[in-house]
Amino acid sequence: MGNKPILVVHGGAWAMPDDVISAHENGVRNALDAGWKILERGGTTLDAIEAAVMVMEEDDTFDAGRGSFLTCDGTVEMDALIMDGATLRAGGVGGVRHVRSAIRLSRLVLEKSPHVYFVGDGAERFAQEHGMKLIDNKELVIEREVVRLREFKAKLAAGGKDTTFSGGQDEIHPVGMSSHDTVGAVALDAHGNIAGATSTGGTLNKDPGRVGDSSLIGCGCYADNASAAASCTGWGEPIMKLVLAKSAADEVARGKDPHSAAREAISALKTRLNGHGGIILLDAQGRYGIAHNTPRMAWGVRSTDGVQVGIKR
Amino acid sequence: MGNKPILVVHGGAWAMPDDVISAHENGVRNALDAGWKILERGGTTLDAIEAAVMVMEEDDTFDAGRGSFLTCDGTVEMDALIMDGATLRAGGVGGVRHVRSAIRLSRLVLEKSPHVYFVGDGAERFAQEHGMKLIDNKELVIEREVVRLREFKAKLAAGGKDTTFSGGQDEIHPVGMSSHDTVGAVALDAHGNIAGATSTGGTLNKDPGRVGDSSLIGCGCYADNASAAASCTGWGEPIMKLVLAKSAADEVARGKDPHSAAREAISALKTRLNGHGGIILLDAQGRYGIAHNTPRMAWGVRSTDGVQVGIKR
Repeated sequence: MGNKPILVVHGGAWAMPDDVISAHENGVRNALDAGWKILERGGTTLDAIEAAVMVMEEDDTFDAGRGSFLTCDGTVEMDALIMDGATLRAGGVGGVRHVRSAIRLSRLVLEKSPHVYFVGDGAERFAQEHGMKLIDNKELVIEREVVRLREFKAKLAAGGKDTTFSGGQDEIHPVGMSSHDTVGAVALDAHGNIAGATSTGGTLNKDPGRVGDSSLIGCGCYADNASAAASCTGWGEPIMKLVLAKSAADEVARGKDPHSAAREAISALKTRLNGHGGIILLDAQGRYGIAHNTPRMAWGVRSTDGVQVGIKR
Repeated sequence: MGNKPILVVHGGAWAMPDDVISAHENGVRNALDAGWKILERGGTTLDAIEAAVMVMEEDDTFDAGRGSFLTCDGTVEMDALIMDGATLRAGGVGGVRHVRSAIRLSRLVLEKSPHVYFVGDGAERFAQEHGMKLIDNKELVIEREVVRLREFKAKLAAGGKDTTFSGGQDEIHPVGMSSHDTVGAVALDAHGNIAGATSTGGTLNKDPGRVGDSSLIGCGCYADNASAAASCTGWGEPIMKLVLAKSAADEVARGKDPHSAAREAISALKTRLNGHGGIILLDAQGRYGIAHNTPRMAWGVRSTDGVQVGIKR
């Protein structure tokens, strides 16, 4: 005990339009409140980040849980990962459709399975076998996203280009992508342990079965007390190719401060693959970094020093 | 052009009993032949490793493709990844049941999709949409594995312990695990490019939907001309937690020779997580390393200097 807890969350990095800024700020604040309640009474970092992420999954402001982008089939397919820096235990799921919280299921995998990662129907069978209620996918689908998908498809049909994955700087405002994104959290608890969690509904109009960086260990999420805890957001494929969360954490292990390591990770993402995204990074001393090369990123920090919330430009 | 091509393959690391050694040596040799034919006529590293891995998938000696371990449901579920070191493009699939070759489908993802990773039904839909024939899962199931699963379950029912994931040094000969394992290949072509590929049927009696290290970018496979190409085998979960392939490749980028980097990666696997496995590692100068801490590992190397094949003790 005796460590000074800290919680850092993000609510996605992309080109959020002005009219969703306050919803993002409120959502991030609510996530901080839920996680901090646990940390300040001496709870574990895993409990805190799970609670923080669940708040954002339930908030349809974010691309996670209810309110996520829809696949080309009009369904919600979610991916998530949670990792414990003290033991390197991790739990993740990819392509799940019938649970209310992908991060809750990931935590269940971490706690109850010798395995780290489950996908598709098998992940849902694991959920059911461990007492999680399976739900109708429709519970996760909201009208706003039905309209967004319909309009997106209409524009594609009219000859518009899906630039979601083209990566050009001029093209990071593709139809529908200027809205919401993946959520994540990293925390240090009073016991001196760090952990990371990431949850997402993926990208608009994605092919069913497509899994991005969020739930892949080392890519969209990582945690190791000996290096750092990280959660990424943004355009998934370049993040995957650089295994960005683990790479950034490794730089901290080699002596870089998390602020510089976060900035350099995002800089490498741009330089090597013309990628766009954001990262939050926290080490076991409570030092943290937040970086992104997207126009905006929703973020929040809570410690005994108080609360900071922002949509960085 | 003018680079001296080299191909390194592995046919799994575990405690292979004496009676399967010659089959492993022959299988590895056949894989080398298939890949080398492509490299020696100036073909690409991606074509060479895909061909080499496909030979091992078709050979029921190995835990990949036909002849893989069965899930607790008695089905074959396969995972694979292929990655191009020149461009960092990658393609992978997790939990596929109805394709003949998981590495062929992975290559298709690499070539034809803006995405990197597909799982489950969605991966198979992608296969079908791109001209791959879907097959009955029974085509992949062989009698030897049906018997193995039945005997394994009988022993569990009689109070035996599944020690597959316990990780103790005394327990690396659990029922059924003393047989075959994941396959992989790394190669350097005459154009100076390296690439890596890994394919697996996973572990005996696994829960459906469980995905191990093999198909996860950075874990069981990685490739970057600026560092190295790597393929891992062994007990998947600890390999995932250390993101082993990328970590080993990064050490090469920082100046370590691949031989030392491979040994140190396997040493870290044991020290930090009591993990067991093997790795092959190759850089763009054609320097390679092969390391494992399992009793045996099937491996082979082919270059203009000739062929070497072994089951290291």
